[in-house]
Amino acid sequence: MADQLSPDEKFDLVTRNLQEVLGEEKLKQVLQERELKVYWGTATTGKPHVAYFVPMSKIADFLKAGCEVTILFADLHAYLDNMKAPWELLELRVKYYEQVIKAMLESIGVPLDKLKFVKGTDYQLSREYTLDVYRLSSMVTEHDAKKAGAEVVKQVEHPLLSGLLYPGLQALDEEYLKVDAQFGGVDQRKIFTLAEKYLPSLGYAKRAHLMNPMVPGLTGTKMSSSEEESKIDLLDSKEDVKKKLKKAFCEPGNIQNNGVLSFVKYVLFPLRGEFCIKRDPKWGGDKIYTGFEEVEKDFAEETIHPGDLKASVETALNQLLEPIRKKFESPELRKLTNSAYPNPSKTKGAKAGGGGGGGGGEDDELAPSRLDIRVGKIISVEKHPDADSLYLEKIDMRGIESQAMLLCASIEGDPRRVEPLDPPEGSSPGEQVFVEGYETGKPDDKLNPKKKVWEKLQVDLKISDECVAQWKDQHLMTKLGQITCKTLKGGNIS
Amino acid sequence: MADQLSPDEKFDLVTRNLQEVLGEEKLKQVLQERELKVYWGTATTGKPHVAYFVPMSKIADFLKAGCEVTILFADLHAYLDNMKAPWELLELRVKYYEQVIKAMLESIGVPLDKLKFVKGTDYQLSREYTLDVYRLSSMVTEHDAKKAGAEVVKQVEHPLLSGLLYPGLQALDEEYLKVDAQFGGVDQRKIFTLAEKYLPSLGYAKRAHLMNPMVPGLTGTKMSSSEEESKIDLLDSKEDVKKKLKKAFCEPGNIQNNGVLSFVKYVLFPLRGEFCIKRDPKWGGDKIYTGFEEVEKDFAEETIHPGDLKASVETALNQLLEPIRKKFESPELRKLTNSAYPNPSKTKGAKAGGGGGGGGGEDDELAPSRLDIRVGKIISVEKHPDADSLYLEKIDMRGIESQAMLLCASIEGDPRRVEPLDPPEGSSPGEQVFVEGYETGKPDDKLNPKKKVWEKLQVDLKISDECVAQWKDQHLMTKLGQITCKTLKGGNIS
Repeated sequence: MADQLSPDEKFDLVTRNLQEVLGEEKLKQVLQERELKVYWGTATTGKPHVAYFVPMSKIADFLKAGCEVTILFADLHAYLDNMKAPWELLELRVKYYEQVIKAMLESIGVPLDKLKFVKGTDYQLSREYTLDVYRLSSMVTEHDAKKAGAEVVKQVEHPLLSGLLYPGLQALDEEYLKVDAQFGGVDQRKIFTLAEKYLPSLGYAKRAHLMNPMVPGLTGTKMSSSEEESKIDLLDSKEDVKKKLKKAFCEPGNIQNNGVLSFVKYVLFPLRGEFCIKRDPKWGGDKIYTGFEEVEKDFAEETIHPGDLKASVETALNQLLEPIRKKFESPELRKLTNSAYPNPSKTKGAKAGGGGGGGGGEDDELAPSRLDIRVGKIISVEKHPDADSLYLEKIDMRGIESQAMLLCASIEGDPRRVEPLDPPEGSSPGEQVFVEGYETGKPDDKLNPKKKVWEKLQVDLKISDECVAQWKDQHLMTKLGQITCKTLKGGNIS
Repeated sequence: MADQLSPDEKFDLVTRNLQEVLGEEKLKQVLQERELKVYWGTATTGKPHVAYFVPMSKIADFLKAGCEVTILFADLHAYLDNMKAPWELLELRVKYYEQVIKAMLESIGVPLDKLKFVKGTDYQLSREYTLDVYRLSSMVTEHDAKKAGAEVVKQVEHPLLSGLLYPGLQALDEEYLKVDAQFGGVDQRKIFTLAEKYLPSLGYAKRAHLMNPMVPGLTGTKMSSSEEESKIDLLDSKEDVKKKLKKAFCEPGNIQNNGVLSFVKYVLFPLRGEFCIKRDPKWGGDKIYTGFEEVEKDFAEETIHPGDLKASVETALNQLLEPIRKKFESPELRKLTNSAYPNPSKTKGAKAGGGGGGGGGEDDELAPSRLDIRVGKIISVEKHPDADSLYLEKIDMRGIESQAMLLCASIEGDPRRVEPLDPPEGSSPGEQVFVEGYETGKPDDKLNPKKKVWEKLQVDLKISDECVAQWKDQHLMTKLGQITCKTLKGGNIS
């Protein structure tokens, strides 16, 4: 395909959908003579999830445009990020990253013959590179190093020295990987400009920089886009994909910070060139879009409903994930996955000497008795002045309001169908609500927001077909009987 | 010798004259079992000068106490300090340092069989060491690194990243050189405590630390102890030693910041065990001291005169330097010296294409016409309230007082013999003073204190046997005639 493209067409493909490009002229010049060499780096820490489709879509563009693409697995950074993880484990993770990224690009359908994988430790601990790190450190001021990392390095009260070194390493990688350009999120911008400023001082060429916009996560809620458990793993089952997409923040008509829409824009359109909204005939039936702008417009005008958007993305996403899941069914890759990311509860069980039970430990930890659910009396409800789908409630809970939230049943994506849960007749405010079989557990004094206890438990809260509130098929009760809602069978609780 | 010492005696020898020791107990423990291993590091930049006798005297103690001593030549630091110097030159400097330090220790007369030299680049660019640098950087906060270097790293407005790395490297050196203790000046204290804090976090043993007090330079003036040209090089001739010692700050009775006294305390006594003051019989004749306290007391009470102290130190110093000079007369070492520290003026001449002349360029630069010497009228003179040998003068120089100082003739070390210089009869304040043969040169607008123009020229100012002020045998003149003094034949001018 790349053979048939002109240098201009290649340039357009390389730079489309980017937020910013530094060094355009140099890129155009190289394209007149030969194919571009581009690198993208990622630290091999957590398991890659569906958000990786965003850079992969750009890498697909690069490959389609004939670029030589190097993917750098920053295993040294991964090691330094968590020095408790032994090198053997990191080695397995690098292998996992390589396999899963290959599977993603195969699923996308791009040629891989110009794709190369390099590990950071292949060269970042060499004499030459190390000397260059010191040379650079003797030119870069503390101030410049700090500024460069400001958006990428975690900003903490007592910053570590390593955070000041990383920008320099990333600059040197451009030279040692012999590329024309580095690709990354626009959050890397200050690191990129540091590289442009200092590589020439070391006698090396200044490289071009290709910057993707910051794309919100597909399944992030507005409040917790970085929440680990809500992310869709590349090997998640169709059921898990559905469950997690349910939680995605996707407000009717709201095109801001909408991870589902962004996924359509930055992944599905670049890969497919079109997108089909699947819809019940009574809401207008299926519609095929050939440009993202139309999708966005229809969503803004509420012609496309969040539920339909999610269902359509679910279908398209599953098409992307299916070949990956299939590939990882092989015994070798299954083994690799399990050894690169061993199940923590299993490990714990093994350490404690108990062989059986499997994931039992984790379930115990997440017992719904950790939530302090009470009966409350709604004093008033009014519409939120700024958002149609939000309400301001005043609730009498007998002074236990500290972390109070009102539990309501709702139907996914339809803000018109929300009902508060009803306690049994005769309940009084402040009365304890429990899940059958978990009557004895003691609620957490305060829910640790980092542990996401509520978010993890909430996923399994629902309304039964008998309009009874449940957690994993167990009824929510007070001492007087079941918690119910009026009409929303199969609804969520949140 | 060490064989005959008990562990306690060894400990006393290892720690004598130190300002502070961290980890005494550990040292005593090791000494019960085996000999100590100690390291001292120095960056191989400028030419080692006589101040190096101070650490060498301690290293002599270590060797006498049976220690295995490693001297680290921090060539990586030297390289980073001045990246314009090529590695070949640095390699030569390391060799020069090794030869000159061996010569110093031979001159001192200690056994060298337990002395080892290591270059930083022998291990500081290895994978293991580099990984440890990164591991350390992932534990040490920016704040701790900055604090550690505060007294050693040059404090500038825009500090470089490298300054934050050096303390960590110095900590790691202890592990990689496999020593029990690091020796250094007390200015290294914060680096040493950083090492004690963080090496255990890396799984390495905490080392002991031996700290020398900060000893003023032998020939430093109070104002410019770091002045490069005033330092006595280890290969300086007897004449140069005399000339430079003349400039040493050594005020009668003042034992503070007295580099000459410090040299007696930290070098001559530890090495010789005694010190002889050579003195004219009319001032009491020669006296042999067996303890420094006595010398200090006699100097404080002005029983020892600065001139006699300097002359006696000169004798002792020349005894130390003579074997070094001798050793460096060999053609190999002469060649090494010249190639490790090429003469800058020669290099300059060669570059400009002019073959002859040698040091001529430098003399031109130091023409006495660069000084703006004027006739002044002394309005009043009174004794300085704090120092017997200082005077406060009020001088009428017709408003050119900005950098004004009064030129006086004086006899070295005798504060009672000071006379102001006399201009020719009939001179008026503000009149120009020049050196014969340099009438046409233009004085510097302002003397750059870094260039030490005055200090360099002043060395050759003197009173002739005819009581005429001279610079290198040329008379100081005004348009009316010679500048003279009343009686101080052969005196200095300052």
